[in-house]
Amino acid sequence: MEQKSLTHVRIVGAGLIGTSIALALRAAGVNVWLSDSDPRSEALARDLMGGDNLFDSVEELCIVATPPDALSDVIATELKRNPALRVMDTGSIKSKPVLDVSTSELPAPRFAPTHPMAGREISGPESARGDLFQGRPWILCLEGVEPELVAMVEEVVSLCGANPIRRTVAEHDRAVALVSHLPQIVASLLAAQLQGADPLDMELSGAGLRDTTRIADSDPQLWSQIIAGNSQALRPLLINLQSDLSQAIQSLDHPVSMQSLVENGRRGRAAIPGKHGGKARNYTYLAIVIDDKPGQLAAIIESCAKAQVNIEDLAIEHTPGQETGLITLAFSPEDSVIVAAHLEKEGWKVHPSR
Amino acid sequence: MEQKSLTHVRIVGAGLIGTSIALALRAAGVNVWLSDSDPRSEALARDLMGGDNLFDSVEELCIVATPPDALSDVIATELKRNPALRVMDTGSIKSKPVLDVSTSELPAPRFAPTHPMAGREISGPESARGDLFQGRPWILCLEGVEPELVAMVEEVVSLCGANPIRRTVAEHDRAVALVSHLPQIVASLLAAQLQGADPLDMELSGAGLRDTTRIADSDPQLWSQIIAGNSQALRPLLINLQSDLSQAIQSLDHPVSMQSLVENGRRGRAAIPGKHGGKARNYTYLAIVIDDKPGQLAAIIESCAKAQVNIEDLAIEHTPGQETGLITLAFSPEDSVIVAAHLEKEGWKVHPSR
Repeated sequence: MEQKSLTHVRIVGAGLIGTSIALALRAAGVNVWLSDSDPRSEALARDLMGGDNLFDSVEELCIVATPPDALSDVIATELKRNPALRVMDTGSIKSKPVLDVSTSELPAPRFAPTHPMAGREISGPESARGDLFQGRPWILCLEGVEPELVAMVEEVVSLCGANPIRRTVAEHDRAVALVSHLPQIVASLLAAQLQGADPLDMELSGAGLRDTTRIADSDPQLWSQIIAGNSQALRPLLINLQSDLSQAIQSLDHPVSMQSLVENGRRGRAAIPGKHGGKARNYTYLAIVIDDKPGQLAAIIESCAKAQVNIEDLAIEHTPGQETGLITLAFSPEDSVIVAAHLEKEGWKVHPSR
Repeated sequence: MEQKSLTHVRIVGAGLIGTSIALALRAAGVNVWLSDSDPRSEALARDLMGGDNLFDSVEELCIVATPPDALSDVIATELKRNPALRVMDTGSIKSKPVLDVSTSELPAPRFAPTHPMAGREISGPESARGDLFQGRPWILCLEGVEPELVAMVEEVVSLCGANPIRRTVAEHDRAVALVSHLPQIVASLLAAQLQGADPLDMELSGAGLRDTTRIADSDPQLWSQIIAGNSQALRPLLINLQSDLSQAIQSLDHPVSMQSLVENGRRGRAAIPGKHGGKARNYTYLAIVIDDKPGQLAAIIESCAKAQVNIEDLAIEHTPGQETGLITLAFSPEDSVIVAAHLEKEGWKVHPSR
């Protein structure tokens, strides 16, 4: 495998992803030329990069970071334009651009489908940062891609500080349908049921409703393209969900059926791995009542740091009409014993759980 | 309204709720007699209360804190046993015990249906605390209840430090169906889809999947009774969801339909009120890359405290295979400007958003 270092890269699409890659590569000394069909985004992105981005040579790699709708057209244009150019994309769905390249008799080995998993709740060049991908997974679907391009892609991922994960195109699209697109649709459908609700009802909302609907705040235009683009992998999952929902409605009055429904959910949830992609998560939760004012959260986190434990997760719950809050902290079972004793000794009101 | 102070209270059901009420009342100097059909729970709860709980007089109030299944029987037994006794319950559904009392020709004005909203992710007397209800909403359905009992109920809520919220029985059951029971069923159904998934797929799970399925970890036996008990209010909500899901499956390939789906979700989510039951939430989010090790979270929270801002919400995201983490903090728009500048000055890598 050739070990040539990248010197000239062109990026098409000056959104959050394209501009963040541009910033990371530029910081690493790569010459970057960033363009966008929207002049405002292009100008803003160039400003963020510290001025002009003229080239003194022809680029070796083109990174296509447009919205899903425009991907295939831009990839085709680039592959046709320059027979020596290599192209990678950063879209959320991989089967469509790959299919479009192969059915257009374009040189498939010169196209690398990739997907950096970052930027979930932010968008636009104004949110871009060179460290956006630091430590985040970056999926690479490199079957059939020529070795020179594989090396380039790996260099881009490495310069961005991301964590490369190899998957086939089919594996990628199936996985994101399940772990990303299905939860998005479900959260949106659930949140949609709240439209027109009586504000008195909504006053009783708790952390459960807020958590289950958080991602319903996502960008409608981007997500409409992602969902429609991965409909093939999504449809069987939704049909399965539909069948389970119909069955639940049928047996809503039967505690035994409802118990299996909740038990099945617990079993499924246990399949979500813990941090660092390792073993399945097994946290112990500590609930702590605090005054809902600046400094309280800091003090409690400081106490945990003193106990030399690692906080795995944290949730803050506010009560309507009150200045009291509830903090729930997740720890490994071993850490939880240490930290619970430490916090109690320091005078915190700790409610251990499960 | 009589302003007599409670002196003798009996509590039936030594679970999380009953034992926590017992601890709060005992701490306030009320004589409490706690019983449970399970001798182990009763013994444990009595230990937690610091020994025996014998009475020197007849109780004025009986608080029924059994699982939903047993509520109506216990309420009826108590109302029949002593014509002077007043009874309140703490169950999650209000129409069923009220219906059961009224159709049994029991003295309805001597029964007060209430629902303390606390204890979501913990259970059993071992998790009980006298401050469990501190600052939490406690729904009271007091239409038709005699003034003496109203005063007693208000005193219990006040001694527990909870925030009394008046609703009719119908309003209560409709509200919790929407803001609590529907999200529970949806989270359980979604999480159930993960059963048997390829572990390689699950490795790509992010915060979105974790948040949407968190409450799927709830207690199956308790929730089966809650769902079945509130099926009347839940059914139309689930049928509506089913219809929206079917429509989504039909139009999965159409970006315009998918865009409305996500837009409807955003509109519904905007109906969830912010903290303290006030205006709709309007947070600004800051994403911060940290080393995933003890002390980092503490340092960042400490920085926020120094800037004198209030953290409204916080999420921790771990990346598979990496020791880097991403912390997302939510602030009021005004606070976010102050804290972002402060954090940047202190050298944190802050990604402002929306």
